[in-house]
Amino acid sequence: MHFTSEQRVDDLVERDFTLGDIPGVLWMPGSASAASPAPLILLGHPGGLDMMRPRLVGRALRSAADGFATATIELPGSGDRPRSPDAEQARADLQATLEAGRPVDDELVDRLVLPLVAAAVPEWQATLDALLALPEIGGPVGFSGGVTAVAIGLAAVDPRIAALGLFAGSYVPRSVVDEARGVTIPLHMLLQWDDEGNDRQQALDLFDAFGSREKTLQANLGGHRGVPAHAGEDAARFFVRHLG
Amino acid sequence: MHFTSEQRVDDLVERDFTLGDIPGVLWMPGSASAASPAPLILLGHPGGLDMMRPRLVGRALRSAADGFATATIELPGSGDRPRSPDAEQARADLQATLEAGRPVDDELVDRLVLPLVAAAVPEWQATLDALLALPEIGGPVGFSGGVTAVAIGLAAVDPRIAALGLFAGSYVPRSVVDEARGVTIPLHMLLQWDDEGNDRQQALDLFDAFGSREKTLQANLGGHRGVPAHAGEDAARFFVRHLG
Repeated sequence: MHFTSEQRVDDLVERDFTLGDIPGVLWMPGSASAASPAPLILLGHPGGLDMMRPRLVGRALRSAADGFATATIELPGSGDRPRSPDAEQARADLQATLEAGRPVDDELVDRLVLPLVAAAVPEWQATLDALLALPEIGGPVGFSGGVTAVAIGLAAVDPRIAALGLFAGSYVPRSVVDEARGVTIPLHMLLQWDDEGNDRQQALDLFDAFGSREKTLQANLGGHRGVPAHAGEDAARFFVRHLG
Repeated sequence: MHFTSEQRVDDLVERDFTLGDIPGVLWMPGSASAASPAPLILLGHPGGLDMMRPRLVGRALRSAADGFATATIELPGSGDRPRSPDAEQARADLQATLEAGRPVDDELVDRLVLPLVAAAVPEWQATLDALLALPEIGGPVGFSGGVTAVAIGLAAVDPRIAALGLFAGSYVPRSVVDEARGVTIPLHMLLQWDDEGNDRQQALDLFDAFGSREKTLQANLGGHRGVPAHAGEDAARFFVRHLG
């Protein structure tokens, strides 16, 4: 892990890094009162770190207020990272399917998501190895948002992930839903009740599948972008309860 | 409204009253720092005020910490109030139906719940008239919990109810679900995901039916009695957002 830049953003210290050829960002609480080592929340996102950075900084600021360090990495095949021809083909097929108004079948979901999960999970694990080796970062570790199937895949194999905050998403392969049955850590799942891009019943089924003994689904009226402010606060409190 | 007793319970002033032949309780925040007049939350319950009192006091204490007055009344046909032969018959039929493992059909739900709603709603309205005439009570008014159909029936006809906190319950007559479509005030609904006595899909359908522009469903793992502590906190924050 090589740090390539460091700057102060409001009450954060933002440090860009590379891990091999993977770009990433670590945000440390800038206030002197923060605990050291700080618990860590890994911030998922849909890919395209540069474009996502303003929203990620917002989430990092919120988490830093609770004393958490946060970090993220670029997804395989997104941003400046090399494209995979198969992944590009799957994305094109999804686009064509949606434009034609056809249903997105299991085969396409598998082709679109499973290779991404297979590539991303070890990268997140390597990132976690490097982050936890830093003196200023401690456990426990939470994972928040991003590609739902990647979060599930990581939580299913890495016992260092102690709490999972998800934004309910469709396109979760059936094999990943099955993996969720084995995920027993506390779960907080947000669902936008009228999300244009998500199938509500699939989201409810996914929530039902998790093996967690503590799990909360919070559904709010509105579309994909209409998450109310209090939902962010409730998600933050979830991490404070389980990592704080 | 005649006050019949007054006592201090922790940080509350608890005043029993009667309104005609209806027994009720008013809890005022006991701390001098509370705003006056205090906003009001009406506390619903399943009937049997004496048996429910310890849990109601707990809810009243939580609300008083946020500066709210709370009040409740006995339901028609519950506690020491006169029984209605029709209601007793409907309850007996429900018991027999459940013991036989038969489904509870719409006719029985209507017979069980509609007369209760018809009798209880005007009583809550008369109680609200009397409470809002007290100098120490102001608006806005919330309604929290209790028999779901009664809460919906009251919110549907009384514009003084400004926020509704419900514990998802089955046995909501179809005509009351239709009434919920006309209820547009903010809604916070708790659902226990594995509630033995509630049909999950009916609860989700009821949430969907509400006409509220702001509504949140919070589902937590566990049975009817397993509501986690944070769910109570989240419900309290809902009322602070909308009545505070």
